[in-house]
Amino acid sequence: MHYDREDLEFQLWDVIGLDRLLAGSDFDRAAVTGILDTADQVATDHFLPFGHLLDEQEPRFVDGRAVLPDVVKPAVDAHVQAGFVAAGFDPAYGGMGLPETVHQAAGFIFAAANVGLAGYAMLTIGAGRLIESFGTEDQKTRYLLPMVEGRWFGTMCLSEPQAGSSLSDITTTAEPLEDGRYRISGRKMWISGGEHDLSENIVHMVLAKIPGGPVGVKGISLFIVPKLRQDGERNDVTLAGLNHKMGYRATTNCALNFGEAGDCIGELLGEPHRGLSYMFQMMNEARIGVGLGAAALGQAGYQASLAYAKDRPQGRSPAAKDPAAPQVPLIAHADIRRLLLAQKAASEPALALALYCASLVDRYRGGDADALTLLDVLTPVAKSWPSEFCLEANKHAIQVLGGAGYTRDYPVERFYRDNRLNPIHEGTHGIQGMDLLGRKVLMNNGAGLAALSSAIQSDLSGAEGTEFSGPLQDALADVARATQALVPQILSDPERGLANATLYLDMFGHVVMGWMWLRIATAAQRLQTDHGSRPFLSGKLQAARYFYARELSRVPEWAHRLERNDSTAFEMKEDWF
Amino acid sequence: MHYDREDLEFQLWDVIGLDRLLAGSDFDRAAVTGILDTADQVATDHFLPFGHLLDEQEPRFVDGRAVLPDVVKPAVDAHVQAGFVAAGFDPAYGGMGLPETVHQAAGFIFAAANVGLAGYAMLTIGAGRLIESFGTEDQKTRYLLPMVEGRWFGTMCLSEPQAGSSLSDITTTAEPLEDGRYRISGRKMWISGGEHDLSENIVHMVLAKIPGGPVGVKGISLFIVPKLRQDGERNDVTLAGLNHKMGYRATTNCALNFGEAGDCIGELLGEPHRGLSYMFQMMNEARIGVGLGAAALGQAGYQASLAYAKDRPQGRSPAAKDPAAPQVPLIAHADIRRLLLAQKAASEPALALALYCASLVDRYRGGDADALTLLDVLTPVAKSWPSEFCLEANKHAIQVLGGAGYTRDYPVERFYRDNRLNPIHEGTHGIQGMDLLGRKVLMNNGAGLAALSSAIQSDLSGAEGTEFSGPLQDALADVARATQALVPQILSDPERGLANATLYLDMFGHVVMGWMWLRIATAAQRLQTDHGSRPFLSGKLQAARYFYARELSRVPEWAHRLERNDSTAFEMKEDWF
Repeated sequence: MHYDREDLEFQLWDVIGLDRLLAGSDFDRAAVTGILDTADQVATDHFLPFGHLLDEQEPRFVDGRAVLPDVVKPAVDAHVQAGFVAAGFDPAYGGMGLPETVHQAAGFIFAAANVGLAGYAMLTIGAGRLIESFGTEDQKTRYLLPMVEGRWFGTMCLSEPQAGSSLSDITTTAEPLEDGRYRISGRKMWISGGEHDLSENIVHMVLAKIPGGPVGVKGISLFIVPKLRQDGERNDVTLAGLNHKMGYRATTNCALNFGEAGDCIGELLGEPHRGLSYMFQMMNEARIGVGLGAAALGQAGYQASLAYAKDRPQGRSPAAKDPAAPQVPLIAHADIRRLLLAQKAASEPALALALYCASLVDRYRGGDADALTLLDVLTPVAKSWPSEFCLEANKHAIQVLGGAGYTRDYPVERFYRDNRLNPIHEGTHGIQGMDLLGRKVLMNNGAGLAALSSAIQSDLSGAEGTEFSGPLQDALADVARATQALVPQILSDPERGLANATLYLDMFGHVVMGWMWLRIATAAQRLQTDHGSRPFLSGKLQAARYFYARELSRVPEWAHRLERNDSTAFEMKEDWF
Repeated sequence: MHYDREDLEFQLWDVIGLDRLLAGSDFDRAAVTGILDTADQVATDHFLPFGHLLDEQEPRFVDGRAVLPDVVKPAVDAHVQAGFVAAGFDPAYGGMGLPETVHQAAGFIFAAANVGLAGYAMLTIGAGRLIESFGTEDQKTRYLLPMVEGRWFGTMCLSEPQAGSSLSDITTTAEPLEDGRYRISGRKMWISGGEHDLSENIVHMVLAKIPGGPVGVKGISLFIVPKLRQDGERNDVTLAGLNHKMGYRATTNCALNFGEAGDCIGELLGEPHRGLSYMFQMMNEARIGVGLGAAALGQAGYQASLAYAKDRPQGRSPAAKDPAAPQVPLIAHADIRRLLLAQKAASEPALALALYCASLVDRYRGGDADALTLLDVLTPVAKSWPSEFCLEANKHAIQVLGGAGYTRDYPVERFYRDNRLNPIHEGTHGIQGMDLLGRKVLMNNGAGLAALSSAIQSDLSGAEGTEFSGPLQDALADVARATQALVPQILSDPERGLANATLYLDMFGHVVMGWMWLRIATAAQRLQTDHGSRPFLSGKLQAARYFYARELSRVPEWAHRLERNDSTAFEMKEDWF
C-alpha cells in the first residue's frame, strides 16, 4: 500500500474531528468514505502503476510541443472523471462543494500514488479558484466552467528567467487594447503544466505589468491568457523549452514565450495592479498543496521501506552468538526501527498539519474569520516543514533498503528525487522563513502568533498531565522568547533581524509539529481509554515520544541561538568564501 | 574550478604539516606540487568534461557485457598513464612509493572532477594492496605487477543477493582442487567495476567459504579470481546484470555469477579462513576513500553553488526600499551565505580528516604503531561523517541555485545523487556506528579512544585561550560521559547497549570535525600572525565559528540522550508501525 488508510481515517475523524466540520454540510461520514474509496481506487489503478515509467520517460520537446508518455492522458482523465477536479468548486459553477478537508485527504491519496500526475489537477483547481474569486461572471462562464469540468487545465505563470524568486523584477508587459483586452509580451520560466495535449485548452494565469504603473510589486497585474482563444485559434503562447528535472517528471515544466510574434492576447483579472495579492491566494493554496505532496512522498517512502524491512532477512542481533541461526528481518534491528520511526514521526504530523490547514479553510468558509488568521501564520510552516523533513524521511527510506534503495528497481530513490523539488518551488525554504518571521509573525500586532498560541493552549489544556504537555509548553516559551528578542531588531534593521529567518522557520515548524503530535497522541489516548489499547494506537504514542525525544528536543538550542541572533553567516564576507 | 587548490595546499602544508612527513622520503615540496599539477591537469581534461554525459548514458548490458560510453576508456587510461594507479604502490613492484597523504590529495582532485571515474583506480589499488600484503611472490608477479601498471583492474566481491551487509551469511563456496587451486561457485552482488572492457583483465578479490570450515565469518577465505586466466581464456565469471543506480553511474555496478558452468577457478590469498580480516584491510582503505569521495562531492557542490551565487542577480535586501534599484547577487542574501557556509563548514574538515587519516598511514609506515590505533578509531568517522554531512551540503548547493539547481543543466543535482550512495556502500551508516561504538571504542581497553583524546589534547594545548578550545573541551567531556554510560550496557546487553550506535557515531563525528576545525583555525591564526590577515584566512576562521555555533552545539543534547540511552526506537514493536 502506498499510504496508510487507517491513519488517514484516524486523522480525519479522531484528530481533526471531521464529524463536527461536516455538520450542516451535504456530506456525511458514509459519503466521505465513499469519496476516499473512489480516490483510492482511481489512484491505485491509474496513478500508482506509472511511477517508474513516467520517471524514466520524461516529457520531450518535439516540434514546439511537449510530448508526454501515452499513459498520462488516461490517468488524468480518470482523475477528472471521478470528480476530483470539480470536487472543490462551488456548486454554482458545476462543482461539488466538497469540504476542503476531504478534498485534501483525497489529494493526499493521489499524491502518494504519483505526485507528478496529481500536479495537473492541483494547478487547474488553483487557477480556477482565482477566476472564481476575482473574475467577472462572463469570465467564469468562459473559463471557469470548462476548468471545473476538467476539459481545460490551468497554470500559474510568475517567474521569469531574470527573476526567479524576485517577482518585483518581472518584465512581462500587458499593453491595453482598445477592446479592453491586453497584448501580453514576455518570457515565463518554471511553468508546471505549461504545455501538453492533455486538455482541450490551457488557461495561464500570468503576472505582467501594465506600462505606466507603479514600479516593483505594486505594478503587477494578473491576466488570463488562454492557449487557445475563444474561436479555437492558437494564442501567441509558445513553448520555448522543457526543463530537465531531477525528479517530479510526470509534470511538464516549461519555459513559455508570450507574444513572441506580437499577438498574445489576455484579459485582466480583477483590478489593475492588484495581481500579486490575487496570485497570493493561489500561491497560498499551492503552498499547502506542496506540503501535502511532500507529506505524501514521505508517507509513500515510509510504507515502501516498512514493507521491505518486514520482509527482508538481514543479519542477526549484536547479542546473537550462533552464526548458523537464521537471519532476522531488517526490522528486528534497532537502527532500522529508528529509520522507520523517523519517517513515521515526520510524515504523519505533516499530513496532520495539511489537514488542519484544510479544516481552517472550511471553518473560514463557515464564517470563522479567526481561522484565516491562523491559516496565514501556518501556511509557511505547512509548506516548508514537510518539504524539508519529509525529504529527510525519504533519505531514510533509501537507507532502510541499502543498496537496493539506491537502484531504480525500487521507488524510494524516486521519492527522494521528487521531494527535492518541494523546498524550492512555490517560494523557497528561505523565502518561507522571511514570510513567517518578517510578515506573518509581525502582522496585525502579532495577531497570527496570538491565534496560534491560543489554538495550541486549547489543545494543551485537553492534554494536561500527559508526558507531552510540559515539553510543548517549554518549547512554546522558547519560541516566544526568541520572537521577542528578534522583533525589535527586525523593525530597526530588517536585514540583520531577518538573517536567521530560516532557522526561525525550522524551530517554529518543530513546535507546530510537536503540537500536531500532541493532537495525535491525545486522540490515541482517548481511543485507548474508550476502546482499549491496540498496536496502531501504541505506535502513535511511541512515534510522538520519538518526535519529542529526538526532534522537539532541538528547539532550546535553536531558540538560544536565535535569541542571540547569531551573526556568523550574516557577517561572512563574499571574498572570505 | 571544481575544487579549491589553495585550500588543498593550505591543508597539506599548513594543517597537516606535510613538510615533516616528507622529510626522509624521495619527495620534496616541488615534487608534490608537480604531482598535484598533473592531477589537476588530467582531472580537468579527462574527468571533468564528462560528468553530465556519464550520468545520462549509464552502462548498458549488451550480450553479457557491460558497455560504457566511449569516453570512459581514454579517461581511465589518462589517469593510469599519469601514474596515479602506480603512485601508491611499493617501488619493489613497480610503484612510486608516493606518501599516502599526497596520493589521497591527488585522489581528491580526481573525485571532485568525477567520482565515478575515479572509482576504477580506487578499487584496483585496494585489490592490489591486498595482494601486495598477503600474496606469495608468485601471485605478486602474476597479478600485482599488471595491476600496478594499470593494465589490469581489480574489484572487491563481498556481498551476495541474500547477504548484503551480513557477510556471515555468504554462501559462495571454494572447493579445493588437486593442484592447490579452488573451484569457485556463487553469486556476488553490488560489484563496482565488476565488468567492463577498460582493462586487459579484471582481478576479482572474492570472499568464499571452503566446505568444512567454521560457520559464520570465521569460515570465510579470500580468493583471487581473474576474469581471464593465465592462458588468456575466460574464467567462468559471468555478468548477471547491471544495477541501475540513482547516481554514481560512471562506475559500473554489477551482479556477477561465479562458476555457473562449474568452471570458475580461483587461488587462495593468504591462509584459509582468514579472508575477512584480510578483506578488512581493503575495506578500511575503501572506507577512507568513500569519505574522501564524499568530501570531494561536497567541495564540488560548494564551488559550483558559490560561483552561481556570486554571478546570479536575484532580489534585494529586506531593508531596500527602492524596487527600481538593481538586483543584488544571490550571495548578498544572508540565507544564501548560510547555505554556502554550511557547505564550506562540512566539506573542508571532511577533507582534513581524510588527509589526516592518510598521514596516519604514512606515520604507521614510518614505524609509528600508535598511528594505526588512531586510524582504526577514526576510520568509521572518516567514512560516515562526510557521507552524511557532505550529502547535506550537496542538498544546500541545489538550494542556492533554486529551480536551476533542480535541473540537469547544472551539476549540483548530480552531486547530490552521486553522494547518496556514500552512506550505503562499504558498510552503511548504521554499520559504521556499530563498528565505532561496539568495536573501536571498546578495543584494547579503550586504547583507540585514549589515542584520540591524546591527539586532540595535543592540538588543544596549542590552541589555548582561543574561542574554539573551551567548546571542544566541553564536547570531548560530553563524549567521555556518554561513552562511560554506554560501555557497561554494551558489555551486559549488546543489543540494548548498541541501539543508539548511529547517534553515537554522529555525535563522535561532530567532535572529530570540531577538532579538524580547531586544527584548521589554529593554522589560519598562525599564518595571520606570521604574514598578516587575508580573506582566505578570515574565511577559515568564520567557517570554524559557523561549525562551532551551528553543529558542535548539537553535541550536548545528543550526549544527554546517549547518557540516558534513549530507548524509544529500541522499544518500538513491529506491529506498532
